[in-house]
Amino acid sequence: MSTLLHTVSMLTGEDVRWIDEGYVIFDEGKFLKIASGKPMDSELEQADHVIDGTGKWLFPGFVNTHGHAGMSLLRGYSDDLPLDRWLQEKMWPFEAKLDKASVKAARNLAMVEMIRSGTTTFLEMYHLFMNEFAEDIDRVGLRATLMRSMIGLCSEDEQVEKLKEATDFAKTWHNQAGSRIKTMLAPHAPYTCPPTFIERIVEEAIHLDVPIHMHLAETRKEVREHIQQYHLHPLEHLEKMGVLEEARWVFAHGVHLNEEHIDLLGRYQLAISHNPISNLKLGSGVAPISRMLQKGVKVGIGTDSVASNNTLDMIEEMRMAAFIHKGIEEDPILIPVETAIEMATKSGADILEHDHVGMIKEGYEADFILLDASAAHLQPKAHPLSHLVYAAKGSDVTDMYVKGQALMRNKELLTLDEEKIKYDANQEFRRIQSLI
Amino acid sequence: MSTLLHTVSMLTGEDVRWIDEGYVIFDEGKFLKIASGKPMDSELEQADHVIDGTGKWLFPGFVNTHGHAGMSLLRGYSDDLPLDRWLQEKMWPFEAKLDKASVKAARNLAMVEMIRSGTTTFLEMYHLFMNEFAEDIDRVGLRATLMRSMIGLCSEDEQVEKLKEATDFAKTWHNQAGSRIKTMLAPHAPYTCPPTFIERIVEEAIHLDVPIHMHLAETRKEVREHIQQYHLHPLEHLEKMGVLEEARWVFAHGVHLNEEHIDLLGRYQLAISHNPISNLKLGSGVAPISRMLQKGVKVGIGTDSVASNNTLDMIEEMRMAAFIHKGIEEDPILIPVETAIEMATKSGADILEHDHVGMIKEGYEADFILLDASAAHLQPKAHPLSHLVYAAKGSDVTDMYVKGQALMRNKELLTLDEEKIKYDANQEFRRIQSLI
Repeated sequence: MSTLLHTVSMLTGEDVRWIDEGYVIFDEGKFLKIASGKPMDSELEQADHVIDGTGKWLFPGFVNTHGHAGMSLLRGYSDDLPLDRWLQEKMWPFEAKLDKASVKAARNLAMVEMIRSGTTTFLEMYHLFMNEFAEDIDRVGLRATLMRSMIGLCSEDEQVEKLKEATDFAKTWHNQAGSRIKTMLAPHAPYTCPPTFIERIVEEAIHLDVPIHMHLAETRKEVREHIQQYHLHPLEHLEKMGVLEEARWVFAHGVHLNEEHIDLLGRYQLAISHNPISNLKLGSGVAPISRMLQKGVKVGIGTDSVASNNTLDMIEEMRMAAFIHKGIEEDPILIPVETAIEMATKSGADILEHDHVGMIKEGYEADFILLDASAAHLQPKAHPLSHLVYAAKGSDVTDMYVKGQALMRNKELLTLDEEKIKYDANQEFRRIQSLI
Repeated sequence: MSTLLHTVSMLTGEDVRWIDEGYVIFDEGKFLKIASGKPMDSELEQADHVIDGTGKWLFPGFVNTHGHAGMSLLRGYSDDLPLDRWLQEKMWPFEAKLDKASVKAARNLAMVEMIRSGTTTFLEMYHLFMNEFAEDIDRVGLRATLMRSMIGLCSEDEQVEKLKEATDFAKTWHNQAGSRIKTMLAPHAPYTCPPTFIERIVEEAIHLDVPIHMHLAETRKEVREHIQQYHLHPLEHLEKMGVLEEARWVFAHGVHLNEEHIDLLGRYQLAISHNPISNLKLGSGVAPISRMLQKGVKVGIGTDSVASNNTLDMIEEMRMAAFIHKGIEEDPILIPVETAIEMATKSGADILEHDHVGMIKEGYEADFILLDASAAHLQPKAHPLSHLVYAAKGSDVTDMYVKGQALMRNKELLTLDEEKIKYDANQEFRRIQSLI
């Protein structure tokens, strides 16, 4: 079932080339041809589907490298509080009441929002009902890297049980759903997982040949307390434990890292998921991303959950990544447009270990979005790459394809019942709230 | 011609009260009644127009306190360059070619974008064709504070000519268009206006009884050079000149101000237009707004032009104002939701001296917007104030009224020909570009 999409403007390849008018052909989930100009008559005849892309811009879908879709009912539930009160008085009491129906409602809402704002691939780090989420993702058609996250502040028996659940999940779902689903292991953070537990998780990750995802150095407080307890920064501690070399790591946040820590990231080829909005909103700070990029560290972009963002809009997140470092370092040449797009697409896909994802290129997976280029805020049209980073809105996204399958066409969702999902999200929110 | 809008959720009054279901009645441009519940039958019968607001949220329109709509063709024309190269190699050569048709195309594009994203009132500081803009605003129905800005790096004869043009404009248009238009005088900046010229402008402003708008301390470089030349920070220099006490000042940016400068702002009741996105994107830094608010300084929010933003979306700007100070100062309680909304509405209107504007309140001007509350990124619906600041998009705005007149209804613009304006913007951009 080949598809030919013509008369479209697009961003192609690793050299960030813009084609003003071109066409793409994809079949069996992969791009067969990317070309400028008009398709040949024979190509049009051979295609099973022909789509007219007039007035639209084609970009790779976004890759969200850190999130907790299961928390999506918590959007706006608490803002503007100190982190400990936010967690202890608001987040945790609500999360303690979550059950299968409410987590499903939350995840569905997240998937609708992600598709509507152009995210084709995402990471989910959560501890509840991950098997059910994997089944849903299989059916909905998104691409994802999934993990059952583990907090180790519990008995050893409970640690063993959590780790078994996490490894079972990782084994069951890795490379499933036509390889759209990958898995990782995920100790929550150094301040919630004792070193022995982290070591056991790393052993399992090496055995399963999957990467490890963990929150790292998000707040100044957690780093200070770690140093008080272990006389080492959490990253130095991981190095001393010998676990950095053996496994593949993707750290979320990495806000409180100094130059030596950035050197460590480079030396061990550790990756960072940069979550600038969540880091600002929670008062955590600004990760030294421009220094990391200068030292060759692989950086992707993530939204974190809507409890601390409060959206899953990767255009806004990419834009913040492009703005914040220029401003903080008083240097407008940092994180230029091409770097911002690369972090939000190809680098993210690499970090989440989705092969041949994140570029519009022959042989790559046909994961892409179309944007309506007609909005006033995108005129004059002359600078589409700049507009994607600095002016576009998630609501400009009109179409989404993942592995060649349409998930949204002309703003209509094809694999999710959006009205029911929005209704359920409100119902489930009220139900859980009434239990607190 | 009274209008009754019913079954609407809304934000009312200075106590930031949220009404889940209520109604408003307005006539002759002013709110007559704001109430919760359903209207009485007699009220429905007496109203000339009745509008059903089901599923919508009503908020005050946004007030953009700093911008240059005349530059709107420059969106995306140059990003990620050092400021001096950005100005000298890109902005100024393009602006030098602007003529009446291209500036009109730029302004029209800006008005479309502002209406679509909820801005009912804006400040325009520009030097070209301001009379024509005032005529257009009169017709289109927006509210604005306008000024012919002046750069004083020229002969005294030219200074005199510019000042005459600016004062003539201020006199002609102040309180025109049913009082929707106010005026100011606007020396461009201390680094582009010699002290004697600023003194002359201040004298005229006092004579005309209009405020003064000026860029101040936007970049570290301009402050350093001012200190080198005059041995005083620009704000200290203005104080020494004795011009702070005599006139009403609204400064744009105020990035590089220390505690003593903030005390000066408080002592002389000087106002600040906070432009966080432009300040970040140009690498200028972050204005110490939380300190200003703590010291009682009146702060509004502005987008600056699309050349350095790259949108006029006040929701994004308000959101950035809410995020950035939390992150920089590592304190999540700074600029809470209510403060962000107040800066973007009522405080802005006060600073631009539009009386009874910026709140949904009886006796106030009927300037408001409706947002469609149904988007996935606004669910669960339980927290509309949080969602306005942290989750909404400009594209959620469906309706706009200014002084009781509908400028947009269900996303259709009623006083501007949007398709022609977008076409003209692209045509004029290409024409000017071909002249460079």
